[in-house]
Amino acid sequence: MRKKTNKTRKKTGLSPGSLVHTGERFQEKVSLQLIKYDLDSVDTYEESSLDKLLEKLDSKKVNWINVNGLHDVSLIEKLGRKFDIHPLVLEDILQVEHMPKFEDYESYLFLTLKMLGEASGKPVSYGREHLSMILGDYFLITFQETEGDVFDVVRESLKNGTGRLRRMGPDYLFYRLIDVIVDHYFLVSDNLEEELDDIEELLLQKFHDGISEKIMQGKKRMIFIRRSIFPLKDELRKLRQSDTGLIRKGTYRFIDDVYDHLQHIVSTNEGFRDLVTSLLELHMSVNSNRMNNVMKTLTIFAAIFMPLTFIAGIYGMNFEYMPELGLSWAYPAVLFLMLTVALAMLIYMRFKKWL
Amino acid sequence: MRKKTNKTRKKTGLSPGSLVHTGERFQEKVSLQLIKYDLDSVDTYEESSLDKLLEKLDSKKVNWINVNGLHDVSLIEKLGRKFDIHPLVLEDILQVEHMPKFEDYESYLFLTLKMLGEASGKPVSYGREHLSMILGDYFLITFQETEGDVFDVVRESLKNGTGRLRRMGPDYLFYRLIDVIVDHYFLVSDNLEEELDDIEELLLQKFHDGISEKIMQGKKRMIFIRRSIFPLKDELRKLRQSDTGLIRKGTYRFIDDVYDHLQHIVSTNEGFRDLVTSLLELHMSVNSNRMNNVMKTLTIFAAIFMPLTFIAGIYGMNFEYMPELGLSWAYPAVLFLMLTVALAMLIYMRFKKWL
Amino acid sequence: MRKKTNKTRKKTGLSPGSLVHTGERFQEKVSLQLIKYDLDSVDTYEESSLDKLLEKLDSKKVNWINVNGLHDVSLIEKLGRKFDIHPLVLEDILQVEHMPKFEDYESYLFLTLKMLGEASGKPVSYGREHLSMILGDYFLITFQETEGDVFDVVRESLKNGTGRLRRMGPDYLFYRLIDVIVDHYFLVSDNLEEELDDIEELLLQKFHDGISEKIMQGKKRMIFIRRSIFPLKDELRKLRQSDTGLIRKGTYRFIDDVYDHLQHIVSTNEGFRDLVTSLLELHMSVNSNRMNNVMKTLTIFAAIFMPLTFIAGIYGMNFEYMPELGLSWAYPAVLFLMLTVALAMLIYMRFKKWL
Amino acid sequence: MRKKTNKTRKKTGLSPGSLVHTGERFQEKVSLQLIKYDLDSVDTYEESSLDKLLEKLDSKKVNWINVNGLHDVSLIEKLGRKFDIHPLVLEDILQVEHMPKFEDYESYLFLTLKMLGEASGKPVSYGREHLSMILGDYFLITFQETEGDVFDVVRESLKNGTGRLRRMGPDYLFYRLIDVIVDHYFLVSDNLEEELDDIEELLLQKFHDGISEKIMQGKKRMIFIRRSIFPLKDELRKLRQSDTGLIRKGTYRFIDDVYDHLQHIVSTNEGFRDLVTSLLELHMSVNSNRMNNVMKTLTIFAAIFMPLTFIAGIYGMNFEYMPELGLSWAYPAVLFLMLTVALAMLIYMRFKKWL
Amino acid sequence: MRKKTNKTRKKTGLSPGSLVHTGERFQEKVSLQLIKYDLDSVDTYEESSLDKLLEKLDSKKVNWINVNGLHDVSLIEKLGRKFDIHPLVLEDILQVEHMPKFEDYESYLFLTLKMLGEASGKPVSYGREHLSMILGDYFLITFQETEGDVFDVVRESLKNGTGRLRRMGPDYLFYRLIDVIVDHYFLVSDNLEEELDDIEELLLQKFHDGISEKIMQGKKRMIFIRRSIFPLKDELRKLRQSDTGLIRKGTYRFIDDVYDHLQHIVSTNEGFRDLVTSLLELHMSVNSNRMNNVMKTLTIFAAIFMPLTFIAGIYGMNFEYMPELGLSWAYPAVLFLMLTVALAMLIYMRFKKWL
Repeated sequence: MRKKTNKTRKKTGLSPGSLVHTGERFQEKVSLQLIKYDLDSVDTYEESSLDKLLEKLDSKKVNWINVNGLHDVSLIEKLGRKFDIHPLVLEDILQVEHMPKFEDYESYLFLTLKMLGEASGKPVSYGREHLSMILGDYFLITFQETEGDVFDVVRESLKNGTGRLRRMGPDYLFYRLIDVIVDHYFLVSDNLEEELDDIEELLLQKFHDGISEKIMQGKKRMIFIRRSIFPLKDELRKLRQSDTGLIRKGTYRFIDDVYDHLQHIVSTNEGFRDLVTSLLELHMSVNSNRMNNVMKTLTIFAAIFMPLTFIAGIYGMNFEYMPELGLSWAYPAVLFLMLTVALAMLIYMRFKKWL
Repeated sequence: MRKKTNKTRKKTGLSPGSLVHTGERFQEKVSLQLIKYDLDSVDTYEESSLDKLLEKLDSKKVNWINVNGLHDVSLIEKLGRKFDIHPLVLEDILQVEHMPKFEDYESYLFLTLKMLGEASGKPVSYGREHLSMILGDYFLITFQETEGDVFDVVRESLKNGTGRLRRMGPDYLFYRLIDVIVDHYFLVSDNLEEELDDIEELLLQKFHDGISEKIMQGKKRMIFIRRSIFPLKDELRKLRQSDTGLIRKGTYRFIDDVYDHLQHIVSTNEGFRDLVTSLLELHMSVNSNRMNNVMKTLTIFAAIFMPLTFIAGIYGMNFEYMPELGLSWAYPAVLFLMLTVALAMLIYMRFKKWL
Repeated sequence: MRKKTNKTRKKTGLSPGSLVHTGERFQEKVSLQLIKYDLDSVDTYEESSLDKLLEKLDSKKVNWINVNGLHDVSLIEKLGRKFDIHPLVLEDILQVEHMPKFEDYESYLFLTLKMLGEASGKPVSYGREHLSMILGDYFLITFQETEGDVFDVVRESLKNGTGRLRRMGPDYLFYRLIDVIVDHYFLVSDNLEEELDDIEELLLQKFHDGISEKIMQGKKRMIFIRRSIFPLKDELRKLRQSDTGLIRKGTYRFIDDVYDHLQHIVSTNEGFRDLVTSLLELHMSVNSNRMNNVMKTLTIFAAIFMPLTFIAGIYGMNFEYMPELGLSWAYPAVLFLMLTVALAMLIYMRFKKWL
Repeated sequence: MRKKTNKTRKKTGLSPGSLVHTGERFQEKVSLQLIKYDLDSVDTYEESSLDKLLEKLDSKKVNWINVNGLHDVSLIEKLGRKFDIHPLVLEDILQVEHMPKFEDYESYLFLTLKMLGEASGKPVSYGREHLSMILGDYFLITFQETEGDVFDVVRESLKNGTGRLRRMGPDYLFYRLIDVIVDHYFLVSDNLEEELDDIEELLLQKFHDGISEKIMQGKKRMIFIRRSIFPLKDELRKLRQSDTGLIRKGTYRFIDDVYDHLQHIVSTNEGFRDLVTSLLELHMSVNSNRMNNVMKTLTIFAAIFMPLTFIAGIYGMNFEYMPELGLSWAYPAVLFLMLTVALAMLIYMRFKKWL
Repeated sequence: MRKKTNKTRKKTGLSPGSLVHTGERFQEKVSLQLIKYDLDSVDTYEESSLDKLLEKLDSKKVNWINVNGLHDVSLIEKLGRKFDIHPLVLEDILQVEHMPKFEDYESYLFLTLKMLGEASGKPVSYGREHLSMILGDYFLITFQETEGDVFDVVRESLKNGTGRLRRMGPDYLFYRLIDVIVDHYFLVSDNLEEELDDIEELLLQKFHDGISEKIMQGKKRMIFIRRSIFPLKDELRKLRQSDTGLIRKGTYRFIDDVYDHLQHIVSTNEGFRDLVTSLLELHMSVNSNRMNNVMKTLTIFAAIFMPLTFIAGIYGMNFEYMPELGLSWAYPAVLFLMLTVALAMLIYMRFKKWL
């Protein structure tokens, strides 16, 4: 799931602000997108040249710059200089394993978080993308690892001009993007829930050898979600408490709402933890019941056939003076004795509730 | 138990305040009820038209509007406009999976919580309903998923004019409804306690194959209660600490009391957690004892009959020169030897405390 | 242990302050006792009529009213009116399952807690009684479920006039009663410790089938103590922090002392939790060792006798051309072979450290 | 380890300040020691009479009174009157099971803690002694249960006049004694660590029946340390935060240092907790591996010899028409068949990785 | 891993500030290094004489003194006198088992922490070195146990004059060293992650006897990391909150960044804790499945061959009147019966899902 351990550390010991991209290179070129809007109009530009893009900025409108791809370090450095971003922020943008984090740099806000799942329409996978956002007074810059995100619903809403979005500033756009990402967390969380339900059903229905691996996988997925999502909660709290002028009063209500959603996911995930533990216990218990049954079967066979075989063994001995051997009713009598012993054993088993 | 995962997410990514009902549709039409009262009189109106109902409001009395059914989104939107409710509140009312939450919107208070169990008279089930309340200065609006609730005792008290209820404002009614809901939590909690007691008894009495599933169910029920009830405690604390003019001084004492009840349930439920763990451990231990007994039985049989069968096997060999075979006392002697071996084994087992 | 679940809920949904006694009825009549004292004199009155008792109150002395029995609701209501007690307090006095709770009502303090164990002289049982106390400026009222309590040592101290008791106000009496109750918690805690020690000894000495039930019982007893005692700690802290004029400065030191004792019990009980877990683990481990031994015994028998029986079986075959059968030294040779095989097996077992 | 449960409760219900010694009586007489020193001189007095000792006090020097033995209650009462000690403090001094506790009585400080281990030179045992200290402006009184302590290093340092000790006031002496006691905690903690290491080695080397009892003992020892030491940390924090004039500014740095040491021990002990759990898990796992091996051995024997014995059984039947019996190559053929079956079984076992 | 228990306690009971080196002696002589730099120049001196080194200090530049080796106590004492270091600080520098700790001594800051891993280029081992740092207004002194550290990247950066380092004061150097150490924590953490992944793979692939020891080792390594790293977090927080003039405003941002990295490691390690528990559970579960399979194999053999052997035994009896024996079709019939029984057993096993 996470095999990036080596890449993460590309920059061990380097001086801070040394910009090194620590993720994989998903595409050839970094693609740039600018959506510039106010209540009256929306303009969308797709550019590969940063300079051309920056010319189109309009500080009287809301400017959403989206950067797809983190491997062109010089481009990101240029962006940083243009908007006067702190080197440590640029470092955090490039370090794809960085945990969710919010920081208030007065002239801009920085938030990095994890985008889970995929764009609507495609099946939900547990892909994780490192997403960073810089909110200024007239712009919002988003950095993604690769093209394809969960923001299409926002872009459409911008184009159609429906809802509150066009009327509000970049802070509301900022909120909307977080909101969409958190909504997708729900999908991932629901997915995990279904997976755990499936495991439970499987567990109770029939024996299945790989079930402990499945539970293990579910647990690792839970840990993965926990590590991706949980830290964001504290960062959002910091965001709510930050007394920055970059976020208007009315927007705080909405951020509270996202925070509540996140709280919901966190508490649901806590429930999953209990659930996974229960599954393990159930598995152990089912296993031990099964073992008990196997052992009982074995013991029943042994208890019935060992005495019978012994009796047969006695009359298979070759002593010359065994008077029973000569009696004509001895054979049926011994057969009857054997039947009696077998029945006695069965009754004993019954009494012990093994049958 | 909770198979609503798909419905919950109907609105992934939609802009906030997009009102979408996420629950099931329990009935054809939304039914509305208005109870208008002061110390002198009580009037009850059942209407299906919202406009007619709103005409009957009297801001000098206490007006309790109860909405049964959440699927008529436009009706709830209209209500929202009438009482100037924030879109996010309306969203939370409709989202039936939303966690308990209190928020102070200055001109009104919003509380959403879970209603467990059913009305008095009917057997208590673990049904869960999403209930939202909006408390204004002269009105209280309650939103339920379906008809049938636990409030009959309050309605009767209103009609009879007994108790403090008619003398007090909507804040006291607000408290009373919470109080009744929390009282029903006790029923659910007591129910679970009985269930766990039953499992324990079953465990100690006799072997029962499905017991681990039963414990699992008990545990899931406990988690269910935990998730439905626990978050309410924090929200009630917020409510107590909110310095709102909508709740009179004297009413806070009563809210403290509800809070204490909730605290009681929470701590009882914590005890259940320990209890369920104990049941599991007991189950494991009983199982392992049983296995021990089965294995001992098997070993006893093997230890007795294997040597005997071996002795019989020796004298079943067909060697020509086996002098013992010709002796007339050999057969009884071998039988006696076998008896001795068997007894020795039994004594050994006794010494090992296996018998 | 706690089978009062149905009674507890007698009053589900009733309006607050509806006084309903939720416990068992232990005696026919409620008995009342008044001890009135100052430095110079002590007077004790036993009355069944409340009015007569109230006439004897003297607001210049310390008046300790003790009510035995909670089923006469009207009497308690009358007391409530006389001393102007809030209805919710009366409700809490009657609800015998209520958790420990302290509340400051300015003109009086209310504390309810659990009395464990029995009066000195009698053997200590795990009886639990719901005790409530109301401390006013010249009176202390105590409510018990039944006659018989742990306060005899206080009553005697009052009669003898020894110690600080007669010189101080009702707040010191209040403290003394709590102190005595907490002292009895120690007895219960020590009792549990001995019980756990006994279980451990039993575990290590010999096999005992019911041991998991015993551990389970110990655990439940621990949970019982935890639920009865732990909440009191927080309430006592509230009491210490309450800045009420009803408790004199000097008395706070003593309350701190009780608080420390309670803290001791709580931390001891935390140790018990670890201990019970250890007992369970030890039990599991002992069990698994036993199983190991049983299995080894079985395997040893099988490993020795299966090959021997097989050899005997070979020479029990009836083929006509088995040259060995005719040799006179074959029988002893086979016996010797069998001995060798058996010895080899024993040596192998020895090597595997199974013997 | 702790069998003092009955003694602890000697004073259940007695009024506070009733001085009752709750420990064992270790020696005939209480012995008293006074060390009086300033920068220039040190005088040591051993007395059995308190009055004579008190005459020698010199309020211009530092006076360290050490009381060995707590059973002479009247002596301790007399000391209490002399230095105006609160009765509750005297009570805590005598109650040998009392938890570590610090309290600031303005004119003096009171600290009680546990002394573990023994004086240097002797082997370290887990003896625990209840030690109390009263720090005044010119005196320090220490109360021990019995003679023999860990303070010899301090006494020598006093005599030699090395280090800071003689130059400083009683607060520094107070610190030094705590420091020495905490240093001995390290010895006890290291001892436990070695014990746990030994258990682990034993676990991995060879089978050892009593290992679960050993782990249990280690765990109990850990709980014992935890209960003796952990509460002291909070009390030391209170001591640091107390704004008392009895402790000079410069001494706080040193108390911080002791606090850090204690913190170290606490965190080490937390590690032990994990370690003990790991040992248990390892033990369980080793046990279960062993069981697996035993079972495999059994199954291998059964799988090989059961088919062989069966084949032998067939040709041991006494039917008249068994054509194989007359063939001269039948016997070797059957022997060869048996060999083949045995080899097939062995190969199968090999394939299943059981061999 | 940590077998220094005896050494740690070399100084039990000694007076504070008694300088005793508690670690091992890694090299003959203590080596000293001074790097003196400002924006314009860098000078490096390697000296074995402290006095010569101290002469070269220049309070207008940044002076980094690095001490390799802690066994020359007198040298460290001399350094302490020169820079006026508190004796307790010197004590902490020498005590190699001391936990991470930060303290603000106004004229200088003291930080001690653990250096894990080794210098770049060499394979990463879990070596742990006790590193102490003293930050003054114009100097930074670092104390290491032995030569060889992780600071080469910093030294090179100083020499090359790249980055911010040469432009900033000793506080930035101080930060850089912490940063490099924390970066190496990542290597150690990643290493552990790979180890755990390997164990998991091993677990799922094939049976491996020593796996529980491997998990145990992983767990101990995790505890080791936890104990070495976790306390540093609190100390860094103290550092951030300390309002000292020794650290410039701009540097705090960077310290925040290190703090975040540490937070990341801590939360990753928490995930490891869950992972190790999962591995254990998986191991237990795999083990129990294996046992189940072994037992089933055994039972299948017993269930098939016990009845067959019994039937063969019957016809091996030597009764004179056994009419079947004389029938010519009896032998094939019995063989057929045996086949039928065997098939019936196999079908039964199939039905029980054992095959």
